[in-house]
Amino acid sequence: MNRIENMLLDLKNTSELMIDLAYSSLLFNSNEIAEEVVFLEEKMDELSAEIQEAIVNYGKESTEDLAKLMIILRLQMAIEDIANAAASIADVVLRGLGDQPVIQMSIQESEVVIDRAIVTSDSQLNGKTLGEVKLSSNCGMFIIAIKRGKQYIFGPGKDTRIQEGDVLIAKGPEDGVEWFKDFADGKEKL
Amino acid sequence: MNRIENMLLDLKNTSELMIDLAYSSLLFNSNEIAEEVVFLEEKMDELSAEIQEAIVNYGKESTEDLAKLMIILRLQMAIEDIANAAASIADVVLRGLGDQPVIQMSIQESEVVIDRAIVTSDSQLNGKTLGEVKLSSNCGMFIIAIKRGKQYIFGPGKDTRIQEGDVLIAKGPEDGVEWFKDFADGKEKL
Repeated sequence: MNRIENMLLDLKNTSELMIDLAYSSLLFNSNEIAEEVVFLEEKMDELSAEIQEAIVNYGKESTEDLAKLMIILRLQMAIEDIANAAASIADVVLRGLGDQPVIQMSIQESEVVIDRAIVTSDSQLNGKTLGEVKLSSNCGMFIIAIKRGKQYIFGPGKDTRIQEGDVLIAKGPEDGVEWFKDFADGKEKL
Repeated sequence: MNRIENMLLDLKNTSELMIDLAYSSLLFNSNEIAEEVVFLEEKMDELSAEIQEAIVNYGKESTEDLAKLMIILRLQMAIEDIANAAASIADVVLRGLGDQPVIQMSIQESEVVIDRAIVTSDSQLNGKTLGEVKLSSNCGMFIIAIKRGKQYIFGPGKDTRIQEGDVLIAKGPEDGVEWFKDFADGKEKL
Protein backbone atom coordinates (compact mmCIF):
# COMPACT_ATOMS: atom_id res chain seq x y z
CA MET A 1 0.00 0.00 0.00
CA ASN A 2 2.89 2.30 0.77
CA ARG A 3 4.14 2.01 -2.78
CA ILE A 4 0.69 2.81 -4.20
CA GLU A 5 0.42 5.82 -1.91
CA ASN A 6 3.76 7.15 -3.08
CA MET A 7 2.78 6.68 -6.69
CA LEU A 8 -0.44 8.60 -6.10
CA LEU A 9 1.51 11.39 -4.44
CA ASP A 10 3.91 11.52 -7.36
CA LEU A 11 0.96 11.68 -9.74
CA LYS A 12 -0.66 14.51 -7.77
CA ASN A 13 2.51 16.57 -7.54
CA THR A 14 3.28 16.09 -11.23
CA SER A 15 -0.23 17.19 -12.23
CA GLU A 16 0.15 20.39 -10.20
CA LEU A 17 3.53 21.13 -11.74
CA MET A 18 2.00 20.50 -15.17
CA ILE A 19 -0.74 23.09 -14.63
CA ASP A 20 1.80 25.67 -13.47
CA LEU A 21 4.09 24.89 -16.40
CA ALA A 22 1.18 24.97 -18.87
CA TYR A 23 0.23 28.51 -17.80
CA SER A 24 3.93 29.46 -17.79
CA SER A 25 4.34 28.21 -21.34
CA LEU A 26 1.44 30.44 -22.35
CA LEU A 27 2.70 33.42 -20.38
CA PHE A 28 6.19 33.29 -21.88
CA ASN A 29 5.04 31.77 -25.17
CA SER A 30 7.66 29.09 -24.64
CA ASN A 31 7.73 25.95 -26.74
CA GLU A 32 10.31 24.34 -24.46
CA ILE A 33 8.04 24.63 -21.43
CA ALA A 34 5.00 23.46 -23.42
CA GLU A 35 6.99 20.44 -24.64
CA GLU A 36 7.85 19.55 -21.06
CA VAL A 37 4.13 19.50 -20.23
CA VAL A 38 3.53 17.07 -23.08
CA PHE A 39 6.49 14.98 -21.93
CA LEU A 40 5.13 14.90 -18.37
CA GLU A 41 1.73 13.89 -19.69
CA GLU A 42 3.31 10.83 -21.28
CA LYS A 43 5.10 10.07 -18.01
CA MET A 44 1.75 10.43 -16.22
CA ASP A 45 0.14 7.92 -18.59
CA GLU A 46 2.83 5.38 -17.73
CA LEU A 47 2.53 6.08 -14.03
CA SER A 48 -1.25 5.80 -14.24
CA ALA A 49 -0.98 2.41 -15.91
CA GLU A 50 1.48 1.31 -13.21
CA ILE A 51 -0.75 2.46 -10.40
CA GLN A 52 -3.78 0.69 -11.88
CA GLU A 53 -1.77 -2.51 -12.18
CA ALA A 54 -0.54 -2.16 -8.61
CA ILE A 55 -4.12 -1.63 -7.42
CA VAL A 56 -5.35 -4.79 -9.18
CA ASN A 57 -2.43 -6.85 -7.81
CA TYR A 58 -2.90 -5.53 -4.31
CA GLY A 59 -6.66 -6.15 -4.49
CA LYS A 60 -6.06 -9.77 -5.49
CA GLU A 61 -3.89 -10.42 -2.44
CA SER A 62 -6.00 -8.67 0.14
CA THR A 63 -9.65 -7.71 -0.11
CA GLU A 64 -9.44 -5.85 3.17
CA ASP A 65 -8.51 -2.50 1.64
CA LEU A 66 -10.80 -2.59 -1.37
CA ALA A 67 -12.57 0.65 -0.41
CA LYS A 68 -9.23 2.37 -0.11
CA LEU A 69 -8.13 1.04 -3.50
CA MET A 70 -11.32 2.28 -5.11
CA ILE A 71 -10.67 5.77 -3.79
CA ILE A 72 -7.10 5.73 -5.03
CA LEU A 73 -8.38 4.68 -8.44
CA ARG A 74 -10.91 7.51 -8.47
CA LEU A 75 -8.23 10.00 -7.48
CA GLN A 76 -5.84 8.65 -10.08
CA MET A 77 -8.48 9.15 -12.76
CA ALA A 78 -9.29 12.69 -11.66
CA ILE A 79 -5.61 13.58 -11.55
CA GLU A 80 -5.13 12.13 -15.04
CA ASP A 81 -7.91 14.44 -16.27
CA ILE A 82 -6.09 17.40 -14.74
CA ALA A 83 -2.88 16.35 -16.49
CA ASN A 84 -4.71 16.06 -19.80
CA ALA A 85 -6.18 19.52 -19.34
CA ALA A 86 -2.69 20.91 -18.68
CA ALA A 87 -1.44 19.28 -21.88
CA SER A 88 -4.33 20.79 -23.75
CA ILE A 89 -3.39 24.27 -22.48
CA ALA A 90 0.25 23.72 -23.49
CA ASP A 91 -0.94 22.57 -26.90
CA VAL A 92 -2.09 26.14 -27.61
CA VAL A 93 1.55 27.18 -27.47
CA LEU A 94 2.81 24.22 -29.50
CA ARG A 95 0.35 25.12 -32.26
CA GLY A 96 1.94 28.54 -32.47
CA LEU A 97 -1.08 30.31 -31.01
CA GLY A 98 0.59 31.45 -27.80
CA ASP A 99 1.55 34.94 -28.91
CA GLN A 100 -1.75 36.58 -28.02
CA PRO A 101 -1.16 39.22 -25.35
CA VAL A 102 -4.72 38.87 -24.08
CA ILE A 103 -4.03 35.40 -22.74
CA GLN A 104 -0.81 36.45 -21.13
CA MET A 105 -2.51 39.30 -19.31
CA SER A 106 -5.20 36.98 -18.06
CA ILE A 107 -2.59 34.81 -16.41
CA GLN A 108 -0.71 37.71 -14.91
CA GLU A 109 -3.53 39.68 -13.32
CA SER A 110 -4.27 37.48 -10.34
CA GLU A 111 -3.53 37.42 -6.66
CA VAL A 112 -1.32 34.47 -7.52
CA VAL A 113 0.97 35.22 -10.43
CA ILE A 114 3.77 33.64 -12.41
CA ASP A 115 6.88 35.71 -13.01
CA ARG A 116 10.60 35.31 -13.62
CA ALA A 117 13.82 36.79 -12.29
CA ILE A 118 17.49 36.57 -13.20
CA VAL A 119 20.03 35.58 -10.54
CA THR A 120 23.06 37.89 -10.36
CA SER A 121 26.43 37.17 -8.75
CA ASP A 122 25.47 39.49 -5.87
CA SER A 123 22.38 37.49 -4.99
CA GLN A 124 22.28 35.30 -1.90
CA LEU A 125 20.70 32.69 -4.17
CA ASN A 126 23.94 32.35 -6.14
CA GLY A 127 25.61 29.06 -5.21
CA LYS A 128 22.91 28.03 -2.74
CA THR A 129 20.42 25.17 -2.95
CA LEU A 130 16.70 25.94 -2.88
CA GLY A 131 16.52 24.05 0.41
CA GLU A 132 19.15 26.35 1.94
CA VAL A 133 17.44 29.56 0.88
CA LYS A 134 13.83 28.54 1.63
CA LEU A 135 12.64 31.05 -0.94
CA SER A 136 9.00 29.97 -0.79
CA SER A 137 8.67 30.49 2.94
CA ASN A 138 10.48 33.84 2.69
CA CYS A 139 8.46 35.52 -0.04
CA GLY A 140 5.83 32.97 -1.08
CA MET A 141 7.38 32.42 -4.52
CA PHE A 142 7.70 28.78 -5.48
CA ILE A 143 10.18 27.91 -8.26
CA ILE A 144 8.55 25.82 -10.98
CA ALA A 145 11.36 25.94 -13.53
CA ILE A 146 14.89 27.23 -13.98
CA LYS A 147 16.35 28.23 -17.32
CA ARG A 148 20.10 27.76 -17.32
CA GLY A 149 21.63 28.77 -20.63
CA LYS A 150 19.55 26.94 -23.19
CA GLN A 151 18.57 24.16 -20.77
CA TYR A 152 15.61 24.00 -18.42
CA ILE A 153 15.34 22.36 -15.02
CA PHE A 154 11.68 21.61 -14.43
CA GLY A 155 10.19 21.19 -10.96
CA PRO A 156 13.50 21.75 -9.12
CA GLY A 157 13.82 20.28 -5.64
CA LYS A 158 15.44 21.26 -2.36
CA ASP A 159 18.84 20.02 -3.56
CA THR A 160 18.84 22.06 -6.76
CA ARG A 161 21.72 24.54 -6.63
CA ILE A 162 21.15 28.01 -8.09
CA GLN A 163 23.81 29.70 -10.20
CA GLU A 164 24.49 33.21 -11.42
CA GLY A 165 22.63 33.77 -14.67
CA ASP A 166 19.82 31.32 -13.87
CA VAL A 167 16.37 32.52 -14.91
CA LEU A 168 13.96 31.48 -12.18
CA ILE A 169 10.32 30.97 -13.16
CA ALA A 170 8.21 31.19 -10.04
CA LYS A 171 4.60 31.17 -8.93
CA GLY A 172 3.37 33.00 -5.88
CA PRO A 173 1.52 35.96 -4.39
CA GLU A 174 1.57 39.28 -6.24
CA ASP A 175 2.91 40.79 -2.99
CA GLY A 176 6.00 38.62 -3.14
CA VAL A 177 7.12 39.31 -6.70
CA GLU A 178 9.04 42.53 -6.14
CA TRP A 179 11.04 41.13 -3.22
CA PHE A 180 11.69 37.94 -5.21
CA LYS A 181 13.08 39.90 -8.16
CA ASP A 182 15.18 42.14 -5.92
CA PHE A 183 16.48 39.11 -4.02
CA ALA A 184 17.50 37.37 -7.24
CA ASP A 185 19.13 40.61 -8.30
CA GLY A 186 21.04 40.98 -5.01
CA LYS A 187 19.29 44.22 -4.01
CA GLU A 188 17.47 42.46 -1.18
CA LYS A 189 19.24 40.25 1.36
CA LEU A 190 17.99 37.84 3.99
CA MET B 1 -12.68 41.54 -25.30
CA ASN B 2 -11.87 42.91 -21.86
CA ARG B 3 -15.00 41.34 -20.43
CA ILE B 4 -14.14 37.96 -21.97
CA GLU B 5 -10.61 38.18 -20.57
CA ASN B 6 -11.92 38.88 -17.10
CA MET B 7 -14.33 35.97 -17.32
CA LEU B 8 -11.49 33.65 -18.35
CA LEU B 9 -9.40 34.89 -15.45
CA ASP B 10 -12.28 34.28 -13.06
CA LEU B 11 -12.69 30.78 -14.48
CA LYS B 12 -8.98 30.04 -14.08
CA ASN B 13 -8.79 31.32 -10.51
CA THR B 14 -11.93 29.44 -9.51
CA SER B 15 -10.60 26.19 -10.97
CA GLU B 16 -7.39 26.54 -8.95
CA LEU B 17 -9.32 27.25 -5.77
CA MET B 18 -11.48 24.20 -6.52
CA ILE B 19 -8.47 21.89 -6.74
CA ASP B 20 -7.08 23.22 -3.46
CA LEU B 21 -10.47 22.90 -1.78
CA ALA B 22 -11.01 19.41 -3.19
CA TYR B 23 -7.76 18.16 -1.65
CA SER B 24 -8.59 20.04 1.56
CA SER B 25 -11.98 18.34 1.76
CA LEU B 26 -10.21 14.99 1.50
CA LEU B 27 -7.50 15.94 3.99
CA PHE B 28 -9.96 17.10 6.64
CA ASN B 29 -12.73 14.72 5.52
CA SER B 30 -15.00 17.75 5.36
CA ASN B 31 -18.41 17.57 3.72
CA GLU B 32 -18.79 21.36 3.90
CA ILE B 33 -15.64 21.94 1.87
CA ALA B 34 -16.57 19.19 -0.60
CA GLU B 35 -20.02 20.75 -1.04
CA GLU B 36 -18.41 24.09 -1.84
CA VAL B 37 -16.42 22.42 -4.62
CA VAL B 38 -19.65 21.05 -6.10
CA PHE B 39 -21.26 24.48 -5.73
CA LEU B 40 -18.33 26.13 -7.50
CA GLU B 41 -18.53 23.56 -10.26
CA GLU B 42 -22.12 24.62 -10.94
CA LYS B 43 -21.00 28.26 -10.93
CA MET B 44 -18.24 27.29 -13.38
CA ASP B 45 -20.79 25.69 -15.71
CA GLU B 46 -22.78 28.92 -15.78
CA LEU B 47 -19.67 31.02 -16.31
CA SER B 48 -18.52 28.68 -19.07
CA ALA B 49 -21.85 29.02 -20.85
CA GLU B 50 -21.62 32.81 -20.51
CA ILE B 51 -18.10 32.96 -21.87
CA GLN B 52 -19.02 30.78 -24.85
CA GLU B 53 -21.96 33.05 -25.60
CA ALA B 54 -19.75 36.13 -25.29
CA ILE B 55 -17.21 34.57 -27.66
CA VAL B 56 -19.87 33.87 -30.28
CA ASN B 57 -21.31 37.39 -29.98
CA TYR B 58 -17.91 39.00 -30.17
CA GLY B 59 -16.95 36.83 -33.13
CA LYS B 60 -20.07 37.95 -35.00
CA GLU B 61 -19.19 41.62 -34.61
CA SER B 62 -15.54 41.42 -35.44
CA THR B 63 -13.71 38.65 -37.23
CA GLU B 64 -10.39 40.30 -36.51
CA ASP B 65 -9.77 38.49 -33.26
CA LEU B 66 -11.02 35.05 -34.26
CA ALA B 67 -7.69 33.37 -33.45
CA LYS B 68 -7.74 34.92 -30.02
CA LEU B 69 -11.32 33.78 -29.45
CA MET B 70 -10.44 30.23 -30.45
CA ILE B 71 -7.66 30.16 -27.89
CA ILE B 72 -9.92 31.49 -25.17
CA LEU B 73 -12.43 28.78 -26.04
CA ARG B 74 -9.74 26.09 -25.82
CA LEU B 75 -8.57 27.43 -22.48
CA GLN B 76 -12.14 27.62 -21.20
CA MET B 77 -12.66 23.97 -22.10
CA ALA B 78 -9.43 22.83 -20.46
CA ILE B 79 -10.24 24.80 -17.32
CA GLU B 80 -13.72 23.27 -17.24
CA ASP B 81 -12.09 19.82 -17.30
CA ILE B 82 -9.94 20.81 -14.34
CA ALA B 83 -13.03 21.98 -12.46
CA ASN B 84 -14.78 18.69 -13.21
CA ALA B 85 -11.80 16.74 -11.93
CA ALA B 86 -11.85 18.78 -8.73
CA ALA B 87 -15.55 17.99 -8.28
CA SER B 88 -14.79 14.34 -8.84
CA ILE B 89 -12.16 14.42 -6.05
CA ALA B 90 -14.61 16.16 -3.70
CA ASP B 91 -17.20 13.53 -4.58
CA VAL B 92 -15.08 10.93 -2.76
CA VAL B 93 -15.77 12.84 0.45
CA LEU B 94 -19.47 13.36 -0.28
CA ARG B 95 -19.86 9.63 -0.76
CA GLY B 96 -18.54 9.10 2.74
CA LEU B 97 -15.28 7.57 1.55
CA GLY B 98 -13.03 10.35 2.80
CA ASP B 99 -12.04 8.76 6.09
CA GLN B 100 -9.15 6.71 4.76
CA PRO B 101 -5.91 7.88 6.38
CA VAL B 102 -3.85 6.71 3.42
CA ILE B 103 -5.32 9.42 1.22
CA GLN B 104 -4.81 12.08 3.80
CA MET B 105 -1.15 11.19 4.20
CA SER B 106 -0.63 11.32 0.47
CA ILE B 107 -1.84 14.91 0.44
CA GLN B 108 0.22 15.92 3.41
CA GLU B 109 3.62 14.54 2.48
CA SER B 110 4.64 17.02 -0.20
CA GLU B 111 6.84 20.02 -0.53
CA VAL B 112 3.60 21.94 -0.86
CA VAL B 113 1.15 21.03 1.88
CA ILE B 114 -2.26 22.01 3.15
CA ASP B 115 -2.62 22.66 6.86
CA ARG B 116 -4.71 24.67 9.29
CA ALA B 117 -4.15 26.96 12.23
CA ILE B 118 -6.35 28.64 14.83
CA VAL B 119 -6.08 32.42 15.34
CA THR B 120 -5.73 33.47 18.99
CA SER B 121 -6.35 36.91 20.48
CA ASP B 122 -2.57 37.38 20.78
CA SER B 123 -1.98 36.89 17.06
CA GLN B 124 -1.13 39.82 14.84
CA LEU B 125 -3.69 38.35 12.45
CA ASN B 126 -6.51 39.10 14.87
CA GLY B 127 -8.53 42.05 13.55
CA LYS B 128 -6.39 42.52 10.44
CA THR B 129 -7.31 41.98 6.81
CA LEU B 130 -5.34 39.46 4.74
CA GLY B 131 -4.14 42.37 2.60
CA GLU B 132 -2.72 44.12 5.66
CA VAL B 133 -0.83 41.08 6.94
CA LYS B 134 0.47 39.80 3.58
CA LEU B 135 0.68 36.31 5.03
CA SER B 136 1.53 34.63 1.76
CA SER B 137 4.57 36.79 1.05
CA ASN B 138 5.73 36.39 4.66
CA CYS B 139 5.63 32.63 5.01
CA GLY B 140 4.39 31.30 1.68
CA MET B 141 1.07 30.12 3.11
CA PHE B 142 -1.96 31.08 1.03
CA ILE B 143 -5.36 31.02 2.75
CA ILE B 144 -7.88 28.97 0.78
CA ALA B 145 -10.66 28.88 3.37
CA ILE B 146 -11.56 30.22 6.79
CA LYS B 147 -13.83 28.39 9.21
CA ARG B 148 -15.58 30.87 11.49
CA GLY B 149 -17.84 29.10 13.95
CA LYS B 150 -19.92 26.82 11.80
CA GLN B 151 -19.56 28.98 8.69
CA TYR B 152 -16.88 28.87 6.03
CA ILE B 153 -15.42 31.69 3.98
CA PHE B 154 -14.04 30.18 0.79
CA GLY B 155 -11.30 31.81 -1.28
CA PRO B 156 -10.99 34.87 0.99
CA GLY B 157 -9.59 38.05 -0.55
CA LYS B 158 -7.36 40.91 0.54
CA ASP B 159 -10.26 42.63 2.29
CA THR B 160 -11.24 39.63 4.40
CA ARG B 161 -10.74 40.49 8.07
CA ILE B 162 -9.42 37.77 10.37
CA GLN B 163 -10.89 37.27 13.83
CA GLU B 164 -9.86 35.46 16.98
CA GLY B 165 -11.05 31.87 16.79
CA ASP B 166 -10.90 31.66 12.99
CA VAL B 167 -9.56 28.38 11.66
CA LEU B 168 -7.37 29.21 8.67
CA ILE B 169 -6.94 26.52 6.02
CA ALA B 170 -3.83 27.29 4.03
CA LYS B 171 -1.69 25.86 1.27
CA GLY B 172 2.02 26.48 1.04
CA PRO B 173 5.58 25.23 1.45
CA GLU B 174 6.28 22.68 4.18
CA ASP B 175 8.95 25.12 5.43
CA GLY B 176 6.34 27.77 6.11
CA VAL B 177 3.85 25.72 8.14
CA GLU B 178 5.46 26.01 11.57
CA TRP B 179 5.84 29.77 11.35
CA PHE B 180 2.27 30.07 10.04
CA LYS B 181 0.88 28.12 12.99
CA ASP B 182 2.98 30.04 15.50
CA PHE B 183 1.96 33.34 13.90
CA ALA B 184 -1.73 32.43 14.10
CA ASP B 185 -1.13 31.41 17.70
CA GLY B 186 0.65 34.67 18.56
CA LYS B 187 3.99 33.04 19.36
CA GLU B 188 5.57 34.55 16.26
CA LYS B 189 5.31 38.25 15.42
CA LEU B 190 6.16 40.27 12.32
